[in-house]
Amino acid sequence: MLEELKEKVFKANLDLVKHNLVIFTWGNVSGIDREKGLVVIKPSGVSYDEMKASDMVVVDLATGKVVEGDLNPSSDTPTHLVLYRAFPEIGGIVHTHSTYATAWAQAGKDIPNIGTTHADYFHDAIPCTKDMTENQMGEYEKETGNVIVERFKGINYVHTPGVLVKNHGPLSWGTDPDNAVYNAVVMEEVAKMAFVSFMVNPDTTMNPLLVEKHFSRKHGPNAYYGQKK
Amino acid sequence: MLEELKEKVFKANLDLVKHNLVIFTWGNVSGIDREKGLVVIKPSGVSYDEMKASDMVVVDLATGKVVEGDLNPSSDTPTHLVLYRAFPEIGGIVHTHSTYATAWAQAGKDIPNIGTTHADYFHDAIPCTKDMTENQMGEYEKETGNVIVERFKGINYVHTPGVLVKNHGPLSWGTDPDNAVYNAVVMEEVAKMAFVSFMVNPDTTMNPLLVEKHFSRKHGPNAYYGQKK
Amino acid sequence: MLEELKEKVFKANLDLVKHNLVIFTWGNVSGIDREKGLVVIKPSGVSYDEMKASDMVVVDLATGKVVEGDLNPSSDTPTHLVLYRAFPEIGGIVHTHSTYATAWAQAGKDIPNIGTTHADYFHDAIPCTKDMTENQMGEYEKETGNVIVERFKGINYVHTPGVLVKNHGPLSWGTDPDNAVYNAVVMEEVAKMAFVSFMVNPDTTMNPLLVEKHFSRKHGPNAYYGQKK
Amino acid sequence: MLEELKEKVFKANLDLVKHNLVIFTWGNVSGIDREKGLVVIKPSGVSYDEMKASDMVVVDLATGKVVEGDLNPSSDTPTHLVLYRAFPEIGGIVHTHSTYATAWAQAGKDIPNIGTTHADYFHDAIPCTKDMTENQMGEYEKETGNVIVERFKGINYVHTPGVLVKNHGPLSWGTDPDNAVYNAVVMEEVAKMAFVSFMVNPDTTMNPLLVEKHFSRKHGPNAYYGQKK
Repeated sequence: MLEELKEKVFKANLDLVKHNLVIFTWGNVSGIDREKGLVVIKPSGVSYDEMKASDMVVVDLATGKVVEGDLNPSSDTPTHLVLYRAFPEIGGIVHTHSTYATAWAQAGKDIPNIGTTHADYFHDAIPCTKDMTENQMGEYEKETGNVIVERFKGINYVHTPGVLVKNHGPLSWGTDPDNAVYNAVVMEEVAKMAFVSFMVNPDTTMNPLLVEKHFSRKHGPNAYYGQKK
Repeated sequence: MLEELKEKVFKANLDLVKHNLVIFTWGNVSGIDREKGLVVIKPSGVSYDEMKASDMVVVDLATGKVVEGDLNPSSDTPTHLVLYRAFPEIGGIVHTHSTYATAWAQAGKDIPNIGTTHADYFHDAIPCTKDMTENQMGEYEKETGNVIVERFKGINYVHTPGVLVKNHGPLSWGTDPDNAVYNAVVMEEVAKMAFVSFMVNPDTTMNPLLVEKHFSRKHGPNAYYGQKK
Repeated sequence: MLEELKEKVFKANLDLVKHNLVIFTWGNVSGIDREKGLVVIKPSGVSYDEMKASDMVVVDLATGKVVEGDLNPSSDTPTHLVLYRAFPEIGGIVHTHSTYATAWAQAGKDIPNIGTTHADYFHDAIPCTKDMTENQMGEYEKETGNVIVERFKGINYVHTPGVLVKNHGPLSWGTDPDNAVYNAVVMEEVAKMAFVSFMVNPDTTMNPLLVEKHFSRKHGPNAYYGQKK
Repeated sequence: MLEELKEKVFKANLDLVKHNLVIFTWGNVSGIDREKGLVVIKPSGVSYDEMKASDMVVVDLATGKVVEGDLNPSSDTPTHLVLYRAFPEIGGIVHTHSTYATAWAQAGKDIPNIGTTHADYFHDAIPCTKDMTENQMGEYEKETGNVIVERFKGINYVHTPGVLVKNHGPLSWGTDPDNAVYNAVVMEEVAKMAFVSFMVNPDTTMNPLLVEKHFSRKHGPNAYYGQKK
């Protein structure tokens, strides 16, 4: 069942290790089959060394029930499901505790868009969610999804494919699991660069016109970066 | 004698190198056999390249005397023994000079609990010990153990399995040598993240309710992270 | 056509990966054949893993037209061409998004010359360009070249072979593609060192006489570093 | 001639690369045969990849003349010679541009002794030299040695085996080339730790009694670290 998607999700999880975004079991990637309404996700607490493609767990998008798999799905599965329901154009989701993005999340600050490395992939500041209320902590992982969706009111989730969950860490998404991993790598890199920039110059800013210019080099009808396909 | 524990302690010492927590001989791991009242520890000043499992030294918990082994035990052995006596539930201890945790120890500051990466493994701030008095320096390593035990008055050592020794460096512990190494890796990572968070936002804080929520995801009767065993 | 130069440009592009200056496709190297008036450059958006020497694109210096190659040249090609025209003594150009140099570029600050590591290769501060005007963003890559050339009025581009493009990242150049990569490595290293120096001492400065001394150890008629050739 | 010392100096130079203290040709190690009054040193500007033990250059301690070797000795040779003459107990010298130690040197600040990692190997703060006068720059490398010797008036060079040359970088020394490399690694690590400590707490200090205690664990008649020999 969904062997091809399982293989992609499995490989994308290993890529988190390759890109130094996770240690131990501190991350997870999922992918979705929109037609079938099924999500494939990493099992909970299984080490990357021992994981096999066949360990990936299949979960029903609508009900959150496990449809196939012997292992528990990632404890963050409810967060992924909320995002897949609210953001219909995304095909993959990544969560990590990568060092610099997590540090910004802990600090409770958006990562401002101050460079073209950021603007090439994220149109806006990478937003940080608000504090959860006590009530929301009952179903923590589901409510994590909800505070993200709320934070994106007025923000285009396709153009800014990532978020910082306050005091927790980053999530990113994309057209498929690979693209979501790519955006996780970018987020960690821009988080590190922005840290250094603000240390060097606390008043760092970027001309919004330059943001538009760079973002549109790679996105939209007038994109001209890369090879024609 | 204690061949299995020697193998575990040996392997855990090598894992310090693998996780980039030590250079040269700057770290040590021990493990305990509670029934026999014996501690197995790395020999002093032996390089990780040349060390063999059979070089591990067996020390009596009660007397501190070497029971087996041709080499001197780690000069930090008296610290380990004090902790094993005061903290009856721990099975392994690690000491390193890992960069960021040591930097916080030098700074004489607790590492505040400001994120779920921290709260998943350490319930409270990772505490930093007080200055030693001149008298305490006579038996420095033993007194290092004593100032740690004193610092944990009112802190649950099982829920917060690590400490910073002021102007020195971190110690961590766990259910066995492996788990103590795991906690040493976590401590170094949260030390680095917290450094960056406070640079980005000096007023960083975390809602205590979120600490409880995250800690209880992985600990206690309602834990739901990982696979059932 | 230009097989030897293609091989050099190809290899120099791979060296960016080896020196940890680029991830994904975030960098490009070009080289020039001054006699033929032709520039060889990396194709746009092609990953370093899959790239072959024969994928390098040949572009006419005067017209910017592709003379040979099936792939689109780097989208930064117009920047390279402006620099080759304005700086007749350079034989290779590198653009990266290396972490610390990019952070300084985002901060909009020149990297001051505060050490001999800098002075050995860059006589002056590594200058940061001004903000572009809205008009200049129409032909962004060409205008990037123009703001660089304008910034070097009064600066010797041979003695200070690199620049920070504001809110974007570094470019460096040299006698050939290899030498341009060398200067890119130096720029990233001095960017990191200068970040730390200014954190440790905001009032860091360097005696200009020491700059002259160190620069002339390696450059000019009285150079005495290295082996006679 | 001096084949054994050449081999040691050669290997110690390669260890600089292994310990990530140098890139390109940015470092050098020498060793001395005190009986013969000869110094063996790395050739100038030769890359570590291509270097052979037989490329090491033999220089006369008294005259500075090359006694054996086809290549120019390191341009820093006059600095090494001044130190060997002034510090009769040292057997090896290392110079690098390692990132954090160089950053402190650029900042013109001593690295304060704020932790046992430092105190285990360096009794005092690692001192930074004063600015050179214009006159001293004529024979820059020789005068570099002289400003170091001057800075050590009142400091025991055996107990504090390293220095920061202002706006330049670190030098360290030891009983032989290996020991000098060891001290260079320690210096880089304590430079990084101290940077982080002072960011976390600008008022970081260390009790001088703790310095004495730690230094004497590894040095002097009452040392008890490591194995008896």
